[in-house]
Amino acid sequence: MTHGTRTGIWLIGARGSVATTTVAGCAALVAGLHPPTGMATETPELADSGLPPLASLVFGGHDTTDCPLPKRAEQLTTAGVLPHGLAQAVTRELEAADREIRPGGPAPGDTRTDEQLVTAFTHDLTDFRHRIGLDRVVVVNVASTEPASGGVGLPPSSLYAAAALRAGCPYVNFTPSTGLRHPSLAAPLAASGLPHAGRDGKTGQTLLRAVLAPMFRQRALTVRAWSGSNLLGGGDGAALADPEAAAAKNAGKERVLTDTLGTRVEGQVHIDDVPALGEWKTAWDHIAFDGFLGTRMILQTLWQGCDSALAAPLVLDLARLTARAHEKGTAGALEDLAFYFKDPEGTPPASLADQYARLLAFGRTLADPPRPEHPATEPTR
Amino acid sequence: MTHGTRTGIWLIGARGSVATTTVAGCAALVAGLHPPTGMATETPELADSGLPPLASLVFGGHDTTDCPLPKRAEQLTTAGVLPHGLAQAVTRELEAADREIRPGGPAPGDTRTDEQLVTAFTHDLTDFRHRIGLDRVVVVNVASTEPASGGVGLPPSSLYAAAALRAGCPYVNFTPSTGLRHPSLAAPLAASGLPHAGRDGKTGQTLLRAVLAPMFRQRALTVRAWSGSNLLGGGDGAALADPEAAAAKNAGKERVLTDTLGTRVEGQVHIDDVPALGEWKTAWDHIAFDGFLGTRMILQTLWQGCDSALAAPLVLDLARLTARAHEKGTAGALEDLAFYFKDPEGTPPASLADQYARLLAFGRTLADPPRPEHPATEPTR
Amino acid sequence: MTHGTRTGIWLIGARGSVATTTVAGCAALVAGLHPPTGMATETPELADSGLPPLASLVFGGHDTTDCPLPKRAEQLTTAGVLPHGLAQAVTRELEAADREIRPGGPAPGDTRTDEQLVTAFTHDLTDFRHRIGLDRVVVVNVASTEPASGGVGLPPSSLYAAAALRAGCPYVNFTPSTGLRHPSLAAPLAASGLPHAGRDGKTGQTLLRAVLAPMFRQRALTVRAWSGSNLLGGGDGAALADPEAAAAKNAGKERVLTDTLGTRVEGQVHIDDVPALGEWKTAWDHIAFDGFLGTRMILQTLWQGCDSALAAPLVLDLARLTARAHEKGTAGALEDLAFYFKDPEGTPPASLADQYARLLAFGRTLADPPRPEHPATEPTR
Amino acid sequence: MTHGTRTGIWLIGARGSVATTTVAGCAALVAGLHPPTGMATETPELADSGLPPLASLVFGGHDTTDCPLPKRAEQLTTAGVLPHGLAQAVTRELEAADREIRPGGPAPGDTRTDEQLVTAFTHDLTDFRHRIGLDRVVVVNVASTEPASGGVGLPPSSLYAAAALRAGCPYVNFTPSTGLRHPSLAAPLAASGLPHAGRDGKTGQTLLRAVLAPMFRQRALTVRAWSGSNLLGGGDGAALADPEAAAAKNAGKERVLTDTLGTRVEGQVHIDDVPALGEWKTAWDHIAFDGFLGTRMILQTLWQGCDSALAAPLVLDLARLTARAHEKGTAGALEDLAFYFKDPEGTPPASLADQYARLLAFGRTLADPPRPEHPATEPTR
Repeated sequence: MTHGTRTGIWLIGARGSVATTTVAGCAALVAGLHPPTGMATETPELADSGLPPLASLVFGGHDTTDCPLPKRAEQLTTAGVLPHGLAQAVTRELEAADREIRPGGPAPGDTRTDEQLVTAFTHDLTDFRHRIGLDRVVVVNVASTEPASGGVGLPPSSLYAAAALRAGCPYVNFTPSTGLRHPSLAAPLAASGLPHAGRDGKTGQTLLRAVLAPMFRQRALTVRAWSGSNLLGGGDGAALADPEAAAAKNAGKERVLTDTLGTRVEGQVHIDDVPALGEWKTAWDHIAFDGFLGTRMILQTLWQGCDSALAAPLVLDLARLTARAHEKGTAGALEDLAFYFKDPEGTPPASLADQYARLLAFGRTLADPPRPEHPATEPTR
Repeated sequence: MTHGTRTGIWLIGARGSVATTTVAGCAALVAGLHPPTGMATETPELADSGLPPLASLVFGGHDTTDCPLPKRAEQLTTAGVLPHGLAQAVTRELEAADREIRPGGPAPGDTRTDEQLVTAFTHDLTDFRHRIGLDRVVVVNVASTEPASGGVGLPPSSLYAAAALRAGCPYVNFTPSTGLRHPSLAAPLAASGLPHAGRDGKTGQTLLRAVLAPMFRQRALTVRAWSGSNLLGGGDGAALADPEAAAAKNAGKERVLTDTLGTRVEGQVHIDDVPALGEWKTAWDHIAFDGFLGTRMILQTLWQGCDSALAAPLVLDLARLTARAHEKGTAGALEDLAFYFKDPEGTPPASLADQYARLLAFGRTLADPPRPEHPATEPTR
Repeated sequence: MTHGTRTGIWLIGARGSVATTTVAGCAALVAGLHPPTGMATETPELADSGLPPLASLVFGGHDTTDCPLPKRAEQLTTAGVLPHGLAQAVTRELEAADREIRPGGPAPGDTRTDEQLVTAFTHDLTDFRHRIGLDRVVVVNVASTEPASGGVGLPPSSLYAAAALRAGCPYVNFTPSTGLRHPSLAAPLAASGLPHAGRDGKTGQTLLRAVLAPMFRQRALTVRAWSGSNLLGGGDGAALADPEAAAAKNAGKERVLTDTLGTRVEGQVHIDDVPALGEWKTAWDHIAFDGFLGTRMILQTLWQGCDSALAAPLVLDLARLTARAHEKGTAGALEDLAFYFKDPEGTPPASLADQYARLLAFGRTLADPPRPEHPATEPTR
Repeated sequence: MTHGTRTGIWLIGARGSVATTTVAGCAALVAGLHPPTGMATETPELADSGLPPLASLVFGGHDTTDCPLPKRAEQLTTAGVLPHGLAQAVTRELEAADREIRPGGPAPGDTRTDEQLVTAFTHDLTDFRHRIGLDRVVVVNVASTEPASGGVGLPPSSLYAAAALRAGCPYVNFTPSTGLRHPSLAAPLAASGLPHAGRDGKTGQTLLRAVLAPMFRQRALTVRAWSGSNLLGGGDGAALADPEAAAAKNAGKERVLTDTLGTRVEGQVHIDDVPALGEWKTAWDHIAFDGFLGTRMILQTLWQGCDSALAAPLVLDLARLTARAHEKGTAGALEDLAFYFKDPEGTPPASLADQYARLLAFGRTLADPPRPEHPATEPTR
């Protein structure tokens, strides 16, 4: 990363809880108000990968609502997501990001065609890059999960993804929505030579499954049924109470089990909208397994977390890694980022430990070659 | 493994629940009554490591009680550890093992010196090996945890370990007792050139910790407190209700956290004797961690398992791996078996995934070299 | 209860798990093999209520399947519901009950009209009563939950209930099926003067709710959301995986909350069919509540039980109490039995403590008047 | 309650978390900032009991530390106990209470005799009452649990209790400390004619036990083992990490089981100090019980609450009820307040439902007689 360059992060769903936490949190970290908890890219293992510094990130994005980011940050403070005082401490940065948010779409009543929308979004992206003088802009989808679409035309998430391709922007899909995985985008994606990553950030229940399922396999214990129940409020709860939207999410949750255990196991996953929980979510998993001689045993897990606080550091990690991959000329699906996703690109290992090893190896490929210790032609300063 | 050879497994605590389940279970597997659930050594990954077949294992051991194994198997059936019908199906094998059990010690009122006890135990081991014509005998300690000893002389577990050394037997310590780790045994152990492994089988709560702690570290989440509570009946519950006996056990449980997280975290571990639970145990873990911007989150796990059914397949795995290591001339502490232990030898990785990788690599070193496909000098038979 | 009389218990679903456990368990109690755990009617508080002794109960019933009861009992032994050895010890009683089971209906392909079915069922009941010389026969529905019926005609549970009315039999509905609550049965029910009770036995999650919800109300804590998830195998799991069948069940589960808390609270209830759990069920409840100054707090409960073992003692209690009510001439809905039901008759109190007080008071009304201590006409013995 | 009178509440441990939450919360309720969640005395059932209005309460107390209440309230805000903004909104009331806090004792190095301390405390109480013109002052002990004392002389909690007696003040012991239950105070207590209540507020795990244990008894289910583990930070966690202090607390927790179930059941209770949890506590209960035919079943509960927020409304309830009892001339132990305590006075019922019924009945005895509907001397208006 050359000193002085700046990297854009363009958030689809830029006024949502995840986006607001990402922008506010990045500013707080840069200001030294908090340690970078939750960010693998700030650990020593990835320190030499040449990732863009947090201070070099510039935020913008699309959204269909218009509540200003400073106000959203206040709401998230009341909800217990952001610590008290943080929103005020980073108001300037929130306002700056707010000025770079452009209207998304299609909004209700919007008569623009898909093509018109993609054109508009593409313009927003290139304008952002050129006006601010950014080296590159990574588009990250953190919008609410969209229902499975059976209609003609592209779902909104794919419109934004198409715009990213046209604008030459690397793309990350942090949601279970379609995004780049629409058949009509396969050809332009392949032609683009852009790095991209997805799908559906692995923040809680699936994260646990990605470490527990390998344990059962390594110990040769037979999982008989794996059942899960999720309670969450916030926008995501409401979106996922729609069975069609939940379907994509649950498919990702179950994929990790099938991939690891090598067989489809009994058990369903439920997602309930519980507005009283606000931005918090609770996930219960019940795993019935057989031990030696068929003895029946049970493991249960209860995970209580704040969704946006779990997602935001991963969004920053992904944006930085993808930006650096783009800088280094890496093209195509970044399978090495499976560590971050429920439904990753390609066929990477399903165990979190293996995914972590892949991430670190990827980090090493991103590093600049070491400078010679006693260079013959060291320029005088 | 040359065809036709037989391997002895000498169990310290040979009439206990773990030993009885091991002997009965091995016989049931050989008879094809059950699949080898819980045994990594029966998975394809270790199929080529030349391990002694289950059918080649011959059981004996020491114990200070005298309840016959077939009766103990009936008791374990009532307790729900062994499936109904299994004890009858393998009575012959249980009786055969029962005949090879010798009195342990020191029993109350036993006036023999340590030296006399070690001599007697050594004789039992060599007699077993010679009389039956075994290639080797692996000694495995599965006795109840002994209290930390402050007295003069060796604790019982070390007397048995000393006998193993004298008799030239590889040794595995599946308990938190001292065993080979007594200072007075360091020199004879080094001189023996025997492979050995320990300490304290990782069957439940610590197994979970070995997969969950790495997850927190890899995701850069800050664990603030990790508290645990164990309820167990059976003999182990009573033994561990003794705070001195529990101390060694808990040290192992906490070691995995310190080794993985790199720092001592808050939180205690309790072990309660709850006779009503019989052979079953329940472990609750409560993990308070910080996410992004210091957000407080909680993971809780509830593990309900049958201790003997969790331990027995690991005992078989360990005995087979250690026997094969001995056959291949491997000497010293088998650090590659950390997968199985709370408090392993040496300084192996603390994450279960890394330990599993080490186990598989070790398995490959145990394999016989592939025979040439078209050998020029094939001897006539 | 006059000495020497006998009471019939006619089980709809007589070959199901609950019925089999009820018949086998009653026989085991009479034989002194087990204490009457789970039966309020065997506690001192109800000892003087003149209930028919367990030894006086005679079992029969309807079912559409034909697996013999002794074989069903063996299956339940394998499933861990009945203790090993019990089925053999009470084979004679199981065979006796098996001989009194008549074909239910309508079976697939059955062309009989509702009227023909009711007539046949009524005949079975009166034949049972007369042939064996029973004082009375209590009909108890323990069949699988039937889907909500939108069709013409009576659902099967109501056909059996109609037969009970015609035969002059008291009726208990232990399931959420319609039974007597069909509009077309209102008039004959009122005319019958028979005691009846229902609906949907309160065996696990709802039992807990009936004690926990009053706690929140009494302590003036504000419940914000009460969410539940149930995992169960066995026939009931499969039946309730049908959303229409689950709807009636869940309505009962939620009624206790609404009745106690005085308001509808957020939160859903799920029922998952998990065949791997066999006859066992696990229920998770998550209760988000507000304390002083709006502080958010959470209670979670995990209930692991065996459905048939929870239901059978309640079936015996209900049959005995209803038989005695009939003997004493009590007519109509037995609201005092709300202790046993999710969706009780009338508007009884919703708290289990109040329901228990009502039960004991009801028990006192069933008692025979005390005999005078110094009767004038005491015969000489 | 005559209009215009004022009631004093004198808190032992007046600068602690419970006391601070009580004072701040009462002010917030009077100001209409929050509904009276958690206060039974504000429900319609106790509306006619003539309790002193919240607005009439005046706070003072003893403490051995000197952090001002407004600062303590800020700390509790950071800890998530008090809502943001509340401390500022009631600063005036916090300052007023702070001015009425007098030094407690004995402080380290304090050379005063017990008699001198009691005299000083008595003076503080009478001065508070006279100077402010209070009708009465209720002394409520909310100090940290003191270790069981084996020494000569009175433990501190009893010194304060003795002062309450001398000053003619009703007394409530919200902690497991000795307080009035010291043998040397029995005679003066009897002579005083003062109402008093205790011991050890029932805020979480024991509250649950008081509703769950009766359920098992009413359903005739056999509890085999009831085990509990508590994790709590704050001052109480540190105090109770002292095994001697925990002993009294745990005795109370187990009393409810013994009283309800009629027998001592297996199982221990642990209290761990986990500073990372701050003012929050988590309690896990594991209840192993037998159902019909000895079937083994398990209930587990997880209670996550804020200790001070659970305690404060009970402190207000108790102070008001005890003040009113004093006004009505009630003397001696108020057994009817068992609803609030782990280790209540006398031998009241152990079930929460029965205790609640007793509370409501007590509330009716406190009511003023209804004014005649057609009084003879009604003044014309």
